Amino acid sequence: MQKVTRNKISMAVIRRLPKYHRYLRELLDDDIKRISSKELSEIIGFTASQIRQDFNNFGGFGQQGYGYNVEDLYFEIGKILGINGHYNTILIGAGHLGQAIANYDRFKEYGFHLTAIFDIDKNIIGSKIQNVEVMSMDNIEKFVQNNDISIAYICVNSSSAQEITDTLVFLGIRAIWNFASVDLKVPDDVTVENVHLIDHLMTLSYFLDEQKSK
Amino acid sequence: MQKVTRNKISMAVIRRLPKYHRYLRELLDDDIKRISSKELSEIIGFTASQIRQDFNNFGGFGQQGYGYNVEDLYFEIGKILGINGHYNTILIGAGHLGQAIANYDRFKEYGFHLTAIFDIDKNIIGSKIQNVEVMSMDNIEKFVQNNDISIAYICVNSSSAQEITDTLVFLGIRAIWNFASVDLKVPDDVTVENVHLIDHLMTLSYFLDEQKSK
Repeated sequence: MQKVTRNKISMAVIRRLPKYHRYLRELLDDDIKRISSKELSEIIGFTASQIRQDFNNFGGFGQQGYGYNVEDLYFEIGKILGINGHYNTILIGAGHLGQAIANYDRFKEYGFHLTAIFDIDKNIIGSKIQNVEVMSMDNIEKFVQNNDISIAYICVNSSSAQEITDTLVFLGIRAIWNFASVDLKVPDDVTVENVHLIDHLMTLSYFLDEQKSK
Repeated sequence: MQKVTRNKISMAVIRRLPKYHRYLRELLDDDIKRISSKELSEIIGFTASQIRQDFNNFGGFGQQGYGYNVEDLYFEIGKILGINGHYNTILIGAGHLGQAIANYDRFKEYGFHLTAIFDIDKNIIGSKIQNVEVMSMDNIEKFVQNNDISIAYICVNSSSAQEITDTLVFLGIRAIWNFASVDLKVPDDVTVENVHLIDHLMTLSYFLDEQKSK
């Protein structure tokens, strides 16, 4: 197998990898050992040629006439996605959404370990969610400096999200998962993944409205 | 202004509209009355030509040398997105994430009204979240038939998401917001918006891993 070359991989391909990973997990669970790009195409919805092209980005994995080895492919894509690693994460904002994220126990399975939760509400500081302590925002600087934190989940409201982001970036955090309804400004070497809840609903209402007008 | 013609609008453009809407809201809040595609480009990050092209899809809105009227543009894009309407929604699965979504009060501002929550857990059936009743899943059929429900939020776990979706589609629901970590199979006239939490984290770990290997 060729060495993984990452430089040329487009964002569009990267965005498809978690989906491949999810489907391959299901195939593994169903004890399916190998699969052709055509078969994979039928269940995942991308064209077979798209699939072959995507996998070629990482040096193939497939054998002509044999198809792909599901287990190999699953682990290779996992490796490319970096989810065989261990990532310490922190969560800022323990409101309803923050609490839901803190309670989501499947993240751990993929190597994402929540180590601290920060909030400004004195009523919850000192409490624990899934055994993770809610600390005062005043402690964030010290905590990040003393712990190897990779990812911050931002679950505060839009008006404070940028300020908190600036602090996190200053403290050396390079990956941010943002749930606030705002686009964060960050340097080029910081990656932000957004979950803009309202945007999803607007897309749904667009389609409902379009159907009605047909 | 030309009549809005929807047929040719690509998914990529539609996906940018909520973002335009968000930025135009901010401009309005800052009392900015008009803006050129170049200025908008600088704050939103799309190229000016991209912006002009996007707005041309809906018949323009702009005047040469004057720029765009922020308020008009905001309301027109809102209209295109269908968010000046009233949408009754239901939520299925009142776990941590479901509760967070039920507690998110900003959806109402955009016309999305949660009318019922469904769960199978007898301990919470009959309780209320933000004044919305948690009902037994057994009542979902009757409830949807007797109420004008547009959108269903699916916050159950992956293993039951498809079965619930089949029921909802059978009952006539045409828009689904899916938080389960699975791709739902639906007929062509049903729109699904996914929030695949794990996929976001995988994208972040990919970039962290890539940085490390540089």
